[in-house]
Amino acid sequence: MTSTTESIRELLLSRIRDVADYPKPGVMFKDITPLLADPVAFTALTDALAELCVRHGATKIVGLEARGFILAAPVAVRAGIGFIPVRKAGKLPGATLSQSYELEYGSAEIEIHAEDLDAGDRVMVIDDVLATGGTAEASLELIRRAGAQVAGVAVLMELGFLAGRDRLEPGLAGAPLEALITV
Amino acid sequence: MTSTTESIRELLLSRIRDVADYPKPGVMFKDITPLLADPVAFTALTDALAELCVRHGATKIVGLEARGFILAAPVAVRAGIGFIPVRKAGKLPGATLSQSYELEYGSAEIEIHAEDLDAGDRVMVIDDVLATGGTAEASLELIRRAGAQVAGVAVLMELGFLAGRDRLEPGLAGAPLEALITV
Repeated sequence: MTSTTESIRELLLSRIRDVADYPKPGVMFKDITPLLADPVAFTALTDALAELCVRHGATKIVGLEARGFILAAPVAVRAGIGFIPVRKAGKLPGATLSQSYELEYGSAEIEIHAEDLDAGDRVMVIDDVLATGGTAEASLELIRRAGAQVAGVAVLMELGFLAGRDRLEPGLAGAPLEALITV
Repeated sequence: MTSTTESIRELLLSRIRDVADYPKPGVMFKDITPLLADPVAFTALTDALAELCVRHGATKIVGLEARGFILAAPVAVRAGIGFIPVRKAGKLPGATLSQSYELEYGSAEIEIHAEDLDAGDRVMVIDDVLATGGTAEASLELIRRAGAQVAGVAVLMELGFLAGRDRLEPGLAGAPLEALITV
């Protein structure tokens, strides 16, 4: 349960656009770019997510490449908490931990700089959308393997029909999954 | 000429790490992830870039995928200016303008949502590093083709020996190229 008001939720929802047949026929894509182009809505989103990070005692914020970066970075600056990127394989220059995960067809791999997290860290993962939860689940693995604790996962929008929440539950181990909007 | 003080520049520079032989042997990569993990430095960077956007009269901020998103998004929120992503081909769901540009070997293509810019807009492009300038140059083309004006380009770090500034000059057409640090 978040303290984000209904008027904020309505503002955010009003700035998300449905795009039919993207990325493939039959899929209705939720496009957040109109929200990002509206500074009032983007600021409200940043404030709402930053408040969640503070409330859940986060000491680091992980953003997931690439759209997650757009939300997580302003939240980190707003909350005064360090930002850690989780990137696709091969994109981080230092020594990394890697985690593979399954996609609908095939698999993908994400990485984190191993030295970016300490044993005492409590890490909040931020992304724009929770769909099937594969990337978020893999990011929780990386955080634990780096020796840190999971403070929670926070997203702008949860696509409830894809049941990502169920997939994340074991990795969260009781930590909160916060979604400002559920569709 | 920016008003960023020497102490801020020193702070930013102290948080940039040299990584040898990345992405290929013989290259010394400038890794900004330690800066992003330090909220004092990341906030100072955000404030310095936001000040430049306001000073140059920007009405929209373009961030370049993917590391550019990490800098441009907080700057947009801090300055209260709309954020527009420029993405690799195929990643934006709506109707786009596309621009190809040459890489060392081969070519790449970036896109912008055509409707995100208006004729009256003055657009600041933000990225982490100015290297050869290929992506930034292509983004200036997109901005002009969308009917908007270029307010300037602002980066954390300019790699002077790669002469990206020379490549950008025609596209800037007198608009400023601001680099907080030049190495």
